[in-house]
Amino acid sequence: MEKITIFSPATVANVSCAFDIMGFAVEEAGDRMTFHKIPEKGIRLIMKNYRELPSVPEKNVAGVVALAMIEKRQPDFGILIEIEKGIFPGSGMGSSGASAGGAAFGVNQLLGNPFTNTELVQFAMLGEALASGVAHADNVAPNLFGGFTLVRSTNPLDVIALPVPRKLSVSLIHPLIEVKTKNARNILKKSLLLKDAVTQWGNVAGLVSGLFMEDYGLIARSMQDGIVEPVRSMLIPMFDKLKQAVLNAGALGCSISGSGPSVFALSEGMETAAVVTKAMEKVYAGKDVPYEMFTSAINKQGVSVLNKK
Amino acid sequence: MEKITIFSPATVANVSCAFDIMGFAVEEAGDRMTFHKIPEKGIRLIMKNYRELPSVPEKNVAGVVALAMIEKRQPDFGILIEIEKGIFPGSGMGSSGASAGGAAFGVNQLLGNPFTNTELVQFAMLGEALASGVAHADNVAPNLFGGFTLVRSTNPLDVIALPVPRKLSVSLIHPLIEVKTKNARNILKKSLLLKDAVTQWGNVAGLVSGLFMEDYGLIARSMQDGIVEPVRSMLIPMFDKLKQAVLNAGALGCSISGSGPSVFALSEGMETAAVVTKAMEKVYAGKDVPYEMFTSAINKQGVSVLNKK
Repeated sequence: MEKITIFSPATVANVSCAFDIMGFAVEEAGDRMTFHKIPEKGIRLIMKNYRELPSVPEKNVAGVVALAMIEKRQPDFGILIEIEKGIFPGSGMGSSGASAGGAAFGVNQLLGNPFTNTELVQFAMLGEALASGVAHADNVAPNLFGGFTLVRSTNPLDVIALPVPRKLSVSLIHPLIEVKTKNARNILKKSLLLKDAVTQWGNVAGLVSGLFMEDYGLIARSMQDGIVEPVRSMLIPMFDKLKQAVLNAGALGCSISGSGPSVFALSEGMETAAVVTKAMEKVYAGKDVPYEMFTSAINKQGVSVLNKK
Repeated sequence: MEKITIFSPATVANVSCAFDIMGFAVEEAGDRMTFHKIPEKGIRLIMKNYRELPSVPEKNVAGVVALAMIEKRQPDFGILIEIEKGIFPGSGMGSSGASAGGAAFGVNQLLGNPFTNTELVQFAMLGEALASGVAHADNVAPNLFGGFTLVRSTNPLDVIALPVPRKLSVSLIHPLIEVKTKNARNILKKSLLLKDAVTQWGNVAGLVSGLFMEDYGLIARSMQDGIVEPVRSMLIPMFDKLKQAVLNAGALGCSISGSGPSVFALSEGMETAAVVTKAMEKVYAGKDVPYEMFTSAINKQGVSVLNKK
């Protein structure tokens, strides 16, 4: 193989109560990345848009992942990566995760697939460490594998693929303000009450059960986050109004995507999700906040090959 | 129906990481209770053993449950309850839960089954409130329904039946010292670090997934409690040695049953569980601590009818 083009999906991490352990991939947003074998050894990057992002490999999320992989395998060729971002950096839709997971997937393909899935997640986590200071797998796991993923543990890495209820659909609105993951992490309280933690892990257990049982009511009842959402939602314009509108429109639940500012909702069925997306738009329409939004299925396959030769 | 005799199983609550939200019922231990219709209205109790437990209905766990139920239905007969306890009070095996759940089940039968399952749990929780000061459902839910249960929320009550992996088997050892639930609750720290809470709910999600996927390895990896077990285990003789011996003998995991002092282990298969129970015994044998112990299947049906007429 000389060249491969992939689609690297956006992801929603911190699924309501499941802070720092769960995420899912979406169909409607993602980056497009092309990997070329080149004679000159090493990694070269071309940012086709978002040219303000660094194209020096050592400072680029995709770059550090690719460098670590060729460092390990020492191929007798180099790799040029063209990146066309479809996910705004700092949107909370796993922009860095898509670059990192996409790089891990694409470079592995050009190297002849020497690495296991777990190793790909570990390489991709290097990109997350560069982006946010924390080598987390909440976005890169669903980005690489698709569907819902549980990251039970980061060290040692333990990723579990969870089932995706057939009708589960996503609405997402992205107010075009930037929230840095680092900052969104720093405002969190470092400790919490045991009773609130118990409430949260009861909901986590309920959400996981709801996914396995395809029980939309249980998913709805479990999508409650009393710990992170109340703090981080302060960074998001009109969050409370948005959430209320979304629930009134029939969504199962609604919370912050990743560390924000994007807000996602889950619904039973694409039709309801479309109504929910409209309800989201209505809250922001005519206000000072520019936004983008979409209705989407859950992406079930993760990073996918668009073409190769 | 004039008379019904039931078996009310022992239960293990706080399944390792799943503190305050999960429990399961065991086959090998439980109370036997007989309910008689009597002409004189009201509730009468006879303790066939453990005569030191109060037999005044208002002060007895089974009594307060039965009183609340007849208060609601106002039957034109009274009920005499004979209780033969097979579970030591204060053992951590859901002794009060068995009395409370058994009373709810038996009285409902004599009344002609007017109450729903959820209502039975709610009545039984009154008994737990009397016993421990907290109206929790961790024991009464698995006692009434059998198998593994998740109590996602107590208010409003939301109980979810979880699947039981076919080979999952239990070892339990009960050092004959008393630990009061109230005291075991009071020594817990009231707050914890967010990062430790995240680790815990990652394990909770892993344990629930392991039950649904019948993945014994995942169940084993998830049975880690970094919050409650390290504190409460100080009340249990030789806990660390016991746990190490159990894991060395091949158990999937090991933790405190309820608020202790009983210690349970889960294994894949009854044969391994029997080996594990022996390993438990070896730690206590010849020491100053008297104990009882058993190997058991998971009880799948909850409170069951032994005979009625």
